Amino acid sequence: MVNSTFIPTDDSRRTRRRNETKERLFRTALQLFAKKGYVNTRVDEITAAADVAKGTFFNYFPTKEHLLFSLSERQQEVIRRAGAAASGARSIKPVIEQFAHDIASGPGGSPLMMRSLLGTAFLHEVMVKRFSELLIFGRGEIAKIMQRGQELGELRTDRAAEQLARSLQTVIFGTNALWALCGDKDLHESLNNALEVFWRGAEARSTNRKEPR
Amino acid sequence: MVNSTFIPTDDSRRTRRRNETKERLFRTALQLFAKKGYVNTRVDEITAAADVAKGTFFNYFPTKEHLLFSLSERQQEVIRRAGAAASGARSIKPVIEQFAHDIASGPGGSPLMMRSLLGTAFLHEVMVKRFSELLIFGRGEIAKIMQRGQELGELRTDRAAEQLARSLQTVIFGTNALWALCGDKDLHESLNNALEVFWRGAEARSTNRKEPR
Repeated sequence: MVNSTFIPTDDSRRTRRRNETKERLFRTALQLFAKKGYVNTRVDEITAAADVAKGTFFNYFPTKEHLLFSLSERQQEVIRRAGAAASGARSIKPVIEQFAHDIASGPGGSPLMMRSLLGTAFLHEVMVKRFSELLIFGRGEIAKIMQRGQELGELRTDRAAEQLARSLQTVIFGTNALWALCGDKDLHESLNNALEVFWRGAEARSTNRKEPR
Repeated sequence: MVNSTFIPTDDSRRTRRRNETKERLFRTALQLFAKKGYVNTRVDEITAAADVAKGTFFNYFPTKEHLLFSLSERQQEVIRRAGAAASGARSIKPVIEQFAHDIASGPGGSPLMMRSLLGTAFLHEVMVKRFSELLIFGRGEIAKIMQRGQELGELRTDRAAEQLARSLQTVIFGTNALWALCGDKDLHESLNNALEVFWRGAEARSTNRKEPR
């Protein structure tokens, strides 16, 4: 990251420009995926829409799949942010809600985009591996959030935090996938519906909230 | 269906043989999908394993995709069976559990099979349409089961039966998909975990059960 109190050198300027171009290619690509789907979007369409020479693309992303690796890194960042928010929170409920909506907003640009991303993630071995690693990382981080919820007395303790994490992941993933397939009106409304039932299934029934550690 | 009290005629015998061959091709195909995935399984591998002449396959299934249409019809049958079981049941809980496990047992032959089926269902327009129709049909039928649960006093009534149906569908779909991606040991154990949290989120909290109509 560029520290704004530094006087910019040629090097830092170059790094910033590089990051800006990479970011522009990435955002443009996501917009095109939302319109045409990942599979049907060609690299030269991305570079044309981003107003960048075609060859330049490969300086940033060796292949089109590397755009998906970038998306996966963003999702990891969303997961980490939720973990950090939970560790100091007095209630994990808003953290979980924010997390679910943030995770969906990356690949949820359109049902077509979500379908083509999920289809690719299911069918291509390299993607299966990446996606599976992301999901397993996510599950571990969500389990820590669930544990915090148990410590706060918000969540039931008769199930392991890891089981509650699996259950939440299932709900978030299932909602995104069904939205992409069934043409449900609003992804975020569907998420709220699914999260409400999950929360009621996972919350502690006793009203005695423990003092947070 | 052949009525066993009839003396079989040439026609009924022919129909029975035809059905047996179709069933054998279908079962053999599912076994190969479980081993190699849908995408990587060729029609001539199916016919060789089923000990049927290659050309014969197309009398039963005009294309390889028609095997997936058959699978979709089986799933419809599972959904209908659950609806029938619920309408006379004193409790819908075992009906829902049976339904979830039955739905998973078709495409759940192996994680690879599930991934290739879901990948195909997400990526190919004809499949998206079929799968989406199946899911919407399923949602409507599950909503009737949820309504029965509400009438029995088992399920909460502050959410519409249709919302509870969506939520259950999300849980079942999400569990199957994550199992296929994350290499979780046992699909049916994962289903039980997810269903337990769903049920707790959907059940009526009052212990006063109503008399069923």
